[in-house]
Amino acid sequence: MDWRKEIEAAAARIRDHVRRTPVLSVDLGLDREVELKLEQLQHTGSFKARGAFNTLLSHDVPAAGVVAASGGNHGAAVAHAARRLGYPAQIFVPEIAGPSKIALIRETGANLTVVPGAYQNALDAARAHQDLTGAMQIHAYDAPATLAGQGTLIREWEEQGLEADTILIAVGGGGLIGGALGWLQGRRKVVAVEPELAPTLHRALYDGPETEVEVGGVAANALGARRIGTHCYGLAAGVGVTSVLVPDDAILDARRLLWRGLRQLVEPAGATALAAVLSGAYRPLPGERVAVLVCGANTAPDPLES
Amino acid sequence: MDWRKEIEAAAARIRDHVRRTPVLSVDLGLDREVELKLEQLQHTGSFKARGAFNTLLSHDVPAAGVVAASGGNHGAAVAHAARRLGYPAQIFVPEIAGPSKIALIRETGANLTVVPGAYQNALDAARAHQDLTGAMQIHAYDAPATLAGQGTLIREWEEQGLEADTILIAVGGGGLIGGALGWLQGRRKVVAVEPELAPTLHRALYDGPETEVEVGGVAANALGARRIGTHCYGLAAGVGVTSVLVPDDAILDARRLLWRGLRQLVEPAGATALAAVLSGAYRPLPGERVAVLVCGANTAPDPLES
Repeated sequence: MDWRKEIEAAAARIRDHVRRTPVLSVDLGLDREVELKLEQLQHTGSFKARGAFNTLLSHDVPAAGVVAASGGNHGAAVAHAARRLGYPAQIFVPEIAGPSKIALIRETGANLTVVPGAYQNALDAARAHQDLTGAMQIHAYDAPATLAGQGTLIREWEEQGLEADTILIAVGGGGLIGGALGWLQGRRKVVAVEPELAPTLHRALYDGPETEVEVGGVAANALGARRIGTHCYGLAAGVGVTSVLVPDDAILDARRLLWRGLRQLVEPAGATALAAVLSGAYRPLPGERVAVLVCGANTAPDPLES
Repeated sequence: MDWRKEIEAAAARIRDHVRRTPVLSVDLGLDREVELKLEQLQHTGSFKARGAFNTLLSHDVPAAGVVAASGGNHGAAVAHAARRLGYPAQIFVPEIAGPSKIALIRETGANLTVVPGAYQNALDAARAHQDLTGAMQIHAYDAPATLAGQGTLIREWEEQGLEADTILIAVGGGGLIGGALGWLQGRRKVVAVEPELAPTLHRALYDGPETEVEVGGVAANALGARRIGTHCYGLAAGVGVTSVLVPDDAILDARRLLWRGLRQLVEPAGATALAAVLSGAYRPLPGERVAVLVCGANTAPDPLES
């Protein structure tokens, strides 16, 4: 697949539907300035809107509409994109999505079913719905249109003047980092950051693409994919990626730093990439310029509901 | 005073000490896109760092250091700037500052005294400290170096490509809007937005610069100055300003909109300018391009402490 071409096409397709999210370079008390992209300001609070719009705008959507299974962020993005484009949407979320993300999806007016258990159970329910109704299934991370949509984020960041040698990106199922790798094609170093309790890509790189892992911890509802996406795996193996793991404590420390030092309140997954720099799980060389992608802010509890 | 020249000098002086905060244009479900500047990402969570650094860098600071009275944001900014530049700082805050702002000041390592009562009581205590020690008093809003520092914000926004015909700015004592008026000199329309419960500039424009008002409501610890600053009043009377008032409910609605629609958690004062558009207190003409300054996020309770 010509990922650069796919991502260029996606960028043109979704341009009027997504926000150009802000970037800035900040001193957060680390040993160097860090470039940030605040993608949590995207519609529905995460990067997922990019892939959702690209998917809907590049397919013929059936009359039955779309269906998605999601830990929350993907579901909210699909529901939002479907509403904006006038399609019915049915979203299945696992209980671990939590009340904030469930409320976010409900606000879009999508049909929402909360499924007992974990992500896999929601995915099974979504597949059954697809078989029954003919609705189009939109996978949370492992489809070319999804990767291409998420890849527009790094393309946009380069357009905004990204200087970094190295970009740190949190990884769940691999849609976001897959898009980044597809766009960059090795032109900059990419560091994949995962929680120790959800080491999906990390384990797959050592043990093979079929590896299934147990997932848990503070970022599980966003980063808790049990198996890495095939497209992401192929890109990671093809163009190369540096994989590091961070403990939950480091994720929560990074989250506190983003709030105290920059007044950005994010969900744990949104602080996971920063946690790698903060904790030393990734140690940049002297002079290495580092960028950190802040990817989601659908935090629980909702700070204005508590 | 040549405000343009003062603000140019301030911008050069503070450049290495303040953040160039992000701007973006967003659809928040209003009848038009709105340009925002997210100044709450500034050091210590509000624009006040600009004036604090400009004051310290343009004066000979005595050995006794600096003293300030503040509803919270100014105190945190002075404490931060003093620490960065190596001066001792003594901050007096009224009880209404609230625990989040008090904690923020404590974190800087400044000496902090919480004074029973309102802002005026803290100011009296600060003056007594000044008389006793010879420390330099840094007023929260009514000094030329403060206005010039805050004025760098609008200068920066124009450098970042501000397109708006009209800029909405929340007003407390008038340091921020004074700096904006000084920089703009009537080149764009400025709308001063105040809570109905703290109508300091609004009343002064009708009843004269000496007018004292009662202050209260959800934004009182940031916008609750009883008398408008003389520099602000002179600029407002000289170059002109449109003054509107918003009810506390509209401020809280705007705060919810910034969180739900953009994942920016701000304090009530930070949402006050947006409240004027959201509530219709200010109704832009068809085709009028509008910008809203988001100025502070030192919210209580701290969302990561609760």
